[in-house]
Amino acid sequence: MRDKSNGHMNDGNPSAHSRGRRRFLATTTALAATMAGGLTDLLGDEGRETGAPMRPYGERSPFEKAARRSSRPGPLTGTGSTLTPLENLYGMITPSALHYERHHSGVPVIDPDKHEILLHGLVDKPLVFTMETLKRYPSISRIYFLECSGNGAGEYQGAPAATPQTTAGLFSCSEWTGVPLSTLLREAGVKSTARWVLAEGGDASRNARSIPLEKAMDDVLVAYGQNGEAVRPEQGYPVRLIVPGWEGNINTKWLQRLHVLDQPAMTRDEAADYTDLLTNGKSYRFSFAMEAKSIVTRPAGGQQLAGPGPYEITGLAWSGRARIATVEVSTDAGRTWQKAALQQPVLKNAVVRFRLPWNWDGKEAVIGSRCADESGYVQPTHEQIVSARGTHARFHYNGIKWWRLQKSGELTNA
Amino acid sequence: MRDKSNGHMNDGNPSAHSRGRRRFLATTTALAATMAGGLTDLLGDEGRETGAPMRPYGERSPFEKAARRSSRPGPLTGTGSTLTPLENLYGMITPSALHYERHHSGVPVIDPDKHEILLHGLVDKPLVFTMETLKRYPSISRIYFLECSGNGAGEYQGAPAATPQTTAGLFSCSEWTGVPLSTLLREAGVKSTARWVLAEGGDASRNARSIPLEKAMDDVLVAYGQNGEAVRPEQGYPVRLIVPGWEGNINTKWLQRLHVLDQPAMTRDEAADYTDLLTNGKSYRFSFAMEAKSIVTRPAGGQQLAGPGPYEITGLAWSGRARIATVEVSTDAGRTWQKAALQQPVLKNAVVRFRLPWNWDGKEAVIGSRCADESGYVQPTHEQIVSARGTHARFHYNGIKWWRLQKSGELTNA
Repeated sequence: MRDKSNGHMNDGNPSAHSRGRRRFLATTTALAATMAGGLTDLLGDEGRETGAPMRPYGERSPFEKAARRSSRPGPLTGTGSTLTPLENLYGMITPSALHYERHHSGVPVIDPDKHEILLHGLVDKPLVFTMETLKRYPSISRIYFLECSGNGAGEYQGAPAATPQTTAGLFSCSEWTGVPLSTLLREAGVKSTARWVLAEGGDASRNARSIPLEKAMDDVLVAYGQNGEAVRPEQGYPVRLIVPGWEGNINTKWLQRLHVLDQPAMTRDEAADYTDLLTNGKSYRFSFAMEAKSIVTRPAGGQQLAGPGPYEITGLAWSGRARIATVEVSTDAGRTWQKAALQQPVLKNAVVRFRLPWNWDGKEAVIGSRCADESGYVQPTHEQIVSARGTHARFHYNGIKWWRLQKSGELTNA
Repeated sequence: MRDKSNGHMNDGNPSAHSRGRRRFLATTTALAATMAGGLTDLLGDEGRETGAPMRPYGERSPFEKAARRSSRPGPLTGTGSTLTPLENLYGMITPSALHYERHHSGVPVIDPDKHEILLHGLVDKPLVFTMETLKRYPSISRIYFLECSGNGAGEYQGAPAATPQTTAGLFSCSEWTGVPLSTLLREAGVKSTARWVLAEGGDASRNARSIPLEKAMDDVLVAYGQNGEAVRPEQGYPVRLIVPGWEGNINTKWLQRLHVLDQPAMTRDEAADYTDLLTNGKSYRFSFAMEAKSIVTRPAGGQQLAGPGPYEITGLAWSGRARIATVEVSTDAGRTWQKAALQQPVLKNAVVRFRLPWNWDGKEAVIGSRCADESGYVQPTHEQIVSARGTHARFHYNGIKWWRLQKSGELTNA
C-alpha cells in the first residue's frame, strides 16, 4: 500500500505488506457481496426519522458490549483486578473506560482541590504540591503502555487462558500527560546521598514502591492527564506516576508522597509481594522492566470465523526495554513465519499494533506471533520461559501464545 | 529538558525549550509550598477505608465537569452542533465523549449487524459490504483531526467568542481505524471515466458530499474504530468516512453509500450550504482543505490566574495541507514572538499540542499563537482573513485569536 502522508510513513515492511495486500486482493472475489436487486431494495426509507439529540458527554453505542472482566477477586470488595478485552481494541489507544484495573484496596474518591503531593527526605527543601500548582509546571505528553507484572501468570502454571483478554488483558496503553518527576526533584534539590525515591499511593493500602533515582530523573512522569482528559479514578485520579516500561504496580496511583532515600524502602509491595521466584527457591530482588511480548488478538481464542477466505490477522506487541523492531506471525505453529506490518509511528514504551493479511484455506491452523525489540531480545516460547523460571513463577510471563483454528472456524487455546 | 526516549524525540525546538525551562525553574521558588509541620499533619489516616469496587466499563471522576456545549441549536431536536471544551484537553487525543458534534438531523440508532455499505456507479462490479466483511479487509490506524468548516464563524461577523470552546470547539482529534477507501474501490474496479465519489450518510438528512477520485484513492479511510473502540454514535457509528485534513462534513458519518461518478453530484450540502461566499458576491465551488490554525487554550478567555508567577502556556495547532512546522506564542499582542515546543511526534493531519513556560509579571498581557505549516503557509491575523473574505463569510475562519489577561488575573477575549 502506498501511503503519501508525511510523518505517518508506511506501516511496517513495505514489500511484505504490499505483497500481502496483493495476495489478499487476488482472493477477495467472494468477500464482498455483489450488488443484487435495485437501489430501492438496498436503500429504503428507513432511518428517515430525526435521530437522537446531542449530549454534553457522549456514550458508546448500546450495541457495543466490550467489557473489563474480573480476573482475581480479592478478599475485600474492590481488591483484585479486571482485564482489558484486547480482542475488541483497535489501533494503539485503549479506551480509558476499558483500561485494566489492579487494586489493593479499591478505588479511593479523592477531591482534587484537597489533594497534595509531599516531596521530602534527602532534599534541600521539602515541598508540597497541590494539583493547581502541579499543572503550572511545564508538562509533556507521551503514549505509554502499562502492564501488570502478573499478566499471564496462569500460563506458567499449566493453566493456559482461553482468550486474549484472559491471557494478556492486564495490559493497556494511553496517552499520558504530566510533569517530569525530574522537574519536581530539581525544584526540591536532591542531596548527593540520595539514590532512591519511594512513591506512595493514597489508597487505603498505601501501596508503595522504591524507584532508583536514575530512573526517576530520566523519564518518569507525574501524570494528571489520560487520553485527553483527567486520569480516570481506577487509574489513579487525580494524579499518578508513570514509570515507562516498568511493571504496573510501580506506576503509583493516587500519588500522595515522594520520599527521597539512600536505599530502597523494601516495602511490603516490593518484598512480600511482586518478587520473581526462581527455580532454585531464590528470587530476584527487583525485576522492573517488562520484557518484549506480543499476542494475536484476532483471530484468537473464543472467536469464530465465518469460513475460508481472506482475514486480517492483527495483534499487539510491546517491550519495556527498547522499541519494537519486528513482529512475525505464524499460522502453522511456528514452522514458518511472515513479517507483519507495524502501525506507525513505533514509539518506545508504547504498544505497537501489527497486521498481516491472510487467506484461510479452511484447514486447521495454529496462529501466533513473536516479536523482537531493538536491544536484540526475542520473545521466548512458552517452553523457554517456563524452563528458565519454573512452574511456580508468578510474574513477568511473556511466552508466545498460540491459537488453534479448527476446520469449523472455532478458535481455542492451542 | 533532556528526553532519552527513542522515537518520541525531544519536544519542539530544544534550545528554546530548555531556555524556557531554565527561566521557569529560576522563578518557581514561590510556586510549590515549602513543607511546614510534621508528616502526621500532612499524611493523616484519611482514606483508610477500602475504596470503590471495580467496574466493567469505567467512568470519569464525579469531580470532572468538562462538557460539550451546544452552539447552534437547529429547528429540530438533534439538529445543530456541540463544541469540544478545548481548554480542558490534555495532549493530542480528544476523549470520544467530548468529540464535537454537528448533526443535520440527529444521531441515528444503527444496528451494526444490519448495516450495509453500497458501492456502485462507474465500477466494474457493484458491491455491498457488511460490517463483518469490512473488518476482514486490511486496516490501518491514523491520528487525524476533524474540524467543522463553520468553526469560529462568529469571528468573521464581529462577534468574537469568549473561550477556546466557543471560538474553536468545532474541532477534535482521534485515532481512527478502518480500511483505505482505495482498497474497496479497487475491489469494485473503477471505470476509466470515473472522476468523483459521492458519499452518503444513513442519517435522516442523507447528508452527501462529492470527493475527487484522486483524494478517494489517496488517504481516505472507511473507519469503524475511534480511540481504540467502535466509532461513537455521534461520530457515525458503526462506520464513517475520514477524509484527512478536509472540512468536517465531507467526512460522511453513518456511511451507507459510495456512488462513483464522472462529475460532482452538487448535492444540497455542497451547493446550497457549506460554500464560501466571497466579498464580490461569488463563492468558491469547493474549499475542501482546512488551513493552518492554532489557538492558546490555557491561559485563555474565561479563565482566572491565581496571581503573578510561572505558568505553562499551551494550546493546539493543525493544518489540513501540510505538517505543522512551527508555532509561536506572543504575550504582548504580537510585538514579540517566542517559539513553542511541539509535542512529538508531529503527524500530518493530526493536532499538534504546543507548550511554552512563561513567568507572568502581573502586568496586563495579550496572549495568542500563530502557526505555520511545511507548505510555508502562515496563519493569518483576524484582519487579514476578514479583508480577504469579508464579514459575511461563514466558513474556514482561521485568524489568530488573542486573549487579554488583566492585572486581576481575569482572562477575556481581546
